[in-house]
Amino acid sequence: MSGAQDIGVGVVGLGVMGRIHIGCLASGIAGARLVAVADQDESAARVLGSEHGVAYSGSAAGLLEAPGVDAVIVATPAETHAEIVEAAAVSGKHILCEKPFDCRLEAIDRALAAVASTGVVLQIGFQRRFDRSFQQLKEKAAAARAGDLVAIHVVSRDPLLAGPPRLIDGMSALFFDTTVHDFDMLRFLTGSEIEMVHVLASSAIHREERIDTAVFLVRMLNGIAATIDNSQAAHGYDQRVEVFGASGLLSAENEPEDAVWVADAAGSRAPQLPYFFPQRYARAYIDQMRSFVEAASRGVSDSPSGADGRAATVAALAAQRSVDEGRPVRVEEVG
Amino acid sequence: MSGAQDIGVGVVGLGVMGRIHIGCLASGIAGARLVAVADQDESAARVLGSEHGVAYSGSAAGLLEAPGVDAVIVATPAETHAEIVEAAAVSGKHILCEKPFDCRLEAIDRALAAVASTGVVLQIGFQRRFDRSFQQLKEKAAAARAGDLVAIHVVSRDPLLAGPPRLIDGMSALFFDTTVHDFDMLRFLTGSEIEMVHVLASSAIHREERIDTAVFLVRMLNGIAATIDNSQAAHGYDQRVEVFGASGLLSAENEPEDAVWVADAAGSRAPQLPYFFPQRYARAYIDQMRSFVEAASRGVSDSPSGADGRAATVAALAAQRSVDEGRPVRVEEVG
Amino acid sequence: MSGAQDIGVGVVGLGVMGRIHIGCLASGIAGARLVAVADQDESAARVLGSEHGVAYSGSAAGLLEAPGVDAVIVATPAETHAEIVEAAAVSGKHILCEKPFDCRLEAIDRALAAVASTGVVLQIGFQRRFDRSFQQLKEKAAAARAGDLVAIHVVSRDPLLAGPPRLIDGMSALFFDTTVHDFDMLRFLTGSEIEMVHVLASSAIHREERIDTAVFLVRMLNGIAATIDNSQAAHGYDQRVEVFGASGLLSAENEPEDAVWVADAAGSRAPQLPYFFPQRYARAYIDQMRSFVEAASRGVSDSPSGADGRAATVAALAAQRSVDEGRPVRVEEVG
Amino acid sequence: MSGAQDIGVGVVGLGVMGRIHIGCLASGIAGARLVAVADQDESAARVLGSEHGVAYSGSAAGLLEAPGVDAVIVATPAETHAEIVEAAAVSGKHILCEKPFDCRLEAIDRALAAVASTGVVLQIGFQRRFDRSFQQLKEKAAAARAGDLVAIHVVSRDPLLAGPPRLIDGMSALFFDTTVHDFDMLRFLTGSEIEMVHVLASSAIHREERIDTAVFLVRMLNGIAATIDNSQAAHGYDQRVEVFGASGLLSAENEPEDAVWVADAAGSRAPQLPYFFPQRYARAYIDQMRSFVEAASRGVSDSPSGADGRAATVAALAAQRSVDEGRPVRVEEVG
Repeated sequence: MSGAQDIGVGVVGLGVMGRIHIGCLASGIAGARLVAVADQDESAARVLGSEHGVAYSGSAAGLLEAPGVDAVIVATPAETHAEIVEAAAVSGKHILCEKPFDCRLEAIDRALAAVASTGVVLQIGFQRRFDRSFQQLKEKAAAARAGDLVAIHVVSRDPLLAGPPRLIDGMSALFFDTTVHDFDMLRFLTGSEIEMVHVLASSAIHREERIDTAVFLVRMLNGIAATIDNSQAAHGYDQRVEVFGASGLLSAENEPEDAVWVADAAGSRAPQLPYFFPQRYARAYIDQMRSFVEAASRGVSDSPSGADGRAATVAALAAQRSVDEGRPVRVEEVG
Repeated sequence: MSGAQDIGVGVVGLGVMGRIHIGCLASGIAGARLVAVADQDESAARVLGSEHGVAYSGSAAGLLEAPGVDAVIVATPAETHAEIVEAAAVSGKHILCEKPFDCRLEAIDRALAAVASTGVVLQIGFQRRFDRSFQQLKEKAAAARAGDLVAIHVVSRDPLLAGPPRLIDGMSALFFDTTVHDFDMLRFLTGSEIEMVHVLASSAIHREERIDTAVFLVRMLNGIAATIDNSQAAHGYDQRVEVFGASGLLSAENEPEDAVWVADAAGSRAPQLPYFFPQRYARAYIDQMRSFVEAASRGVSDSPSGADGRAATVAALAAQRSVDEGRPVRVEEVG
Repeated sequence: MSGAQDIGVGVVGLGVMGRIHIGCLASGIAGARLVAVADQDESAARVLGSEHGVAYSGSAAGLLEAPGVDAVIVATPAETHAEIVEAAAVSGKHILCEKPFDCRLEAIDRALAAVASTGVVLQIGFQRRFDRSFQQLKEKAAAARAGDLVAIHVVSRDPLLAGPPRLIDGMSALFFDTTVHDFDMLRFLTGSEIEMVHVLASSAIHREERIDTAVFLVRMLNGIAATIDNSQAAHGYDQRVEVFGASGLLSAENEPEDAVWVADAAGSRAPQLPYFFPQRYARAYIDQMRSFVEAASRGVSDSPSGADGRAATVAALAAQRSVDEGRPVRVEEVG
Repeated sequence: MSGAQDIGVGVVGLGVMGRIHIGCLASGIAGARLVAVADQDESAARVLGSEHGVAYSGSAAGLLEAPGVDAVIVATPAETHAEIVEAAAVSGKHILCEKPFDCRLEAIDRALAAVASTGVVLQIGFQRRFDRSFQQLKEKAAAARAGDLVAIHVVSRDPLLAGPPRLIDGMSALFFDTTVHDFDMLRFLTGSEIEMVHVLASSAIHREERIDTAVFLVRMLNGIAATIDNSQAAHGYDQRVEVFGASGLLSAENEPEDAVWVADAAGSRAPQLPYFFPQRYARAYIDQMRSFVEAASRGVSDSPSGADGRAATVAALAAQRSVDEGRPVRVEEVG
């Protein structure tokens, strides 16, 4: 099924997300093949390159010079994304960049300028846009009459992780790792921009000085009001969206692993939920990759775009300021 | 089953709520009997009094003078509640007052003073505290370890009513008719006080200048963050609460009328939900009445108290100011 | 609420079912009042009579002679039902007889003859006919087009009881205690008669020589095919019915105690189910009593009738023979 | 990803099932590639062969002679399966044969003899064994304590098809197209053999002389009792299994297409179910193909085997006789 015309893909950053993308490619994505991997831990890159029979490098720069690399997947730590995107664009590579795009707007803007001037394809890894349930939600909401949407509630909670939540550039990782997905979901579902963010954050579960849970009030430019429930210390992976409008309520509930219920003396248990994002969005990651490969093949960018990535980061910066200053923040204040 | 020691109950205000309370009494509440009814529409009072074989009056004052009235149920328009409560207290009658307690704090405070000085029982009609699901929710939340609760989400939407939403004293009836229930639910579940309210309101569905839908961000004094989704223009009666904490998620879902599912070519339909509050809370209204009758029999006030009623009104006033001034409002600013 | 015209009700048999009926009467049934109780354990009758301030007796005969008894509720052991019904009919009392009507057809037929000659009201305690879900099921099935029903599946399982299943007249109590309900449900839903019963029974759970679990294939006279899943050794009380027809599938699922879900590290648990029949059918028992009192007041028998009771017993006898002889049995062979 | 060591697969029979298998291969199955197609409609074979760039033939014999064919997928009409399997085995090809294996036991036995003598891999297309929910059901049932299973209920209904149900060799296609899956499910879940089948069949929906709906009572050799609800005239594709035992109830419910609920004035609708088997078992067909390719690569047969296919056909023959003779039939009577 592979051919000379296949797009050669290099993956930089071999953590959880980099390996998910490599797994998608290895399972067979028509029109693409893995040709190189890179990580600042060069030995890890060597092992994985050998395993897949592809080139490896200890740096993003090395990956960009590897022969046959037409497209790059950026899965390094968040703080390095924009710089690698910029370098890849200058090298003429198409780019699938993991979220968040970056946490620094200046770096994002430099990267966007490079992408614009070289005309490469740039897609940001908001894979939830490819989830069948959220796509159904958007389609059904759109099928209702115009102006129908009034309110949205997003639940997006991660299972309790080992260790306290991270900081990124001194800011709460919750906003950049998790909430960017939810901000993007609001933009995806409403077709509008985020106008204001008011956050109540707590470290109640970790009992430390790091935010692990937050509740958000969000106003969209078109008047839709939204709330978000986030946590990085939950009982399990909880991913739901409710959309309320004049004609009714649409809700995307959690998707279980199977359809098996157990009833015994302890009660009735619903089918088990996926443990975390690699399980919950396994299909979405494949469809995202297919979308990227098709966009790269045609040389025409598709959604979610670099602008989508920038907008989510701006909202995350507003969220951080809302917590810092204990007040609602308009996104125009930060970006 | 009725006896000489039964408490004689008079009902003032013969609208929907007055008739629900009369229905509860007529179906048989041990220890109580209906003895008088009143409404400013005296002919309506006459008809209903005749139907039940009890005295009637064209005014609250007349009801308070009727023989055998030991307790009064106040179900008149909201703007008149506190004054009637005050008069009833002065007359030495026990009182079950519909929510909201009132919209004017001065009137509420005068009524509370009269209740305090005469020692009558006063209970406010937050019947959701008697709903078996919300009681279970509170019990199960309490059973989890101390300090567990972190976030609460309340959905409380009414079916689309004929005509635009009302104003009460120039303020949105949504906050005083509907949201007071949800503010009380937050206080009931958390055992804490509301500290701050931030409201995004819209008239998107009625397309008029009246608020029909609102989304709330609420901070409790003990740090719990909450969101509320309200509407008076929904597809149906939607009454849910989610409580999130370190040990998991508790959710009280809608209670259907029965357990019958229908699957046909159009898909699978869940059991029908109750049309509105008289159906949804039929059992809670009976249990509330039993609780009130027992409290009146013992002469000892129980929850929800007059103070509970005042706190919900204060939060509603804060909500109105949040909309008027487009900012979060601390309840200490209004009450 | 009680008056001179109230029907005086005596209850004979003060086990679980007798006490449920007494509880219904004590909670207030318009038009009826408890006037006497009886049990062969006379001291138990005395205690309960004293508690409720009514007459007591050590025998059914004594109860029938007590002053003010207009109607009798028969809740004694199954083997004694028909004889007490016969005596009560001869005494001119209206009768609500617990299921099964009896296990001996001759006794049933004598009782039915006495009822017919004296014209008293006789109702058999198939309370599931008064359950709102099964009533909805029947109404919705009837609303579908004529001849629609094709197949029915009934699940009716009891929680594991202490000790092995009983025998009644040497026959499996499962068929007379439990399956009679399900046979009646098939007749109630289809408006047709049971024609054939084929049973596969096991004592797999009790590992004794007593049947605790059985699966039934049933053909109705009108051609509808049904299956029943029974057990007296289940994980909980499981009461469901599915009705399949050309236009779709109707299913009455289990009715939970409330609507509270719990999600934690162990998964998601559905709301708790009622422990057993007193909880599951609490409302149906009240509605059954109201129906009986109304029928007795008017002197006109209503469903479920003595003939309904007889038909269920005939089917139970056929089930016992099917097990004894290891083959399908037509009900005309036994009744 | 394809290599010289890939197994070359030919598909004979280009109806719905043949095209599903071709689709699986085209989407990328590691270790296999499509090399030839055949259908008695040679022009259809030519079109499809051309589309996929592979050889084509107007007959099974032609396919078996095509170069590079290591394995054959048999998806022709049921009546022809065993003969093609026999010929393929004689040709030394590994075989994935659609269900039913065949309707004639003599033909099946000749095919099994050929398979045994040549040592090729033979797998029967009971793809439900590869469904994640049914696999979970089996695993969880096995995890319960030994001897636990007591009763099983299988619901397996097809959406109403155009035209009346077919006959195969004068027998009801329902048993050979649909019920064989359910018989296999019972054998898969219990690890035991079917002992007796009693069928109540009807043509109530088609109002013709063809069976479209049937209810089954089944006894397994190990004492487990089962019921099956079948229809080829249902409101939608309905695929459920309940397993009851001492420690509780396991149920595999229908798997929806996504997790989106819609609540509006018409009520609450559950997520849409897959239209029919190609949608419902899309993933299972892929996993079945992977299993077959792996078995063929290793040259070692795996489940479901030819013996599994024969057992299901024997049970279907017993079902047909049960209908013909209006009685329970022991499988040893027919096979």
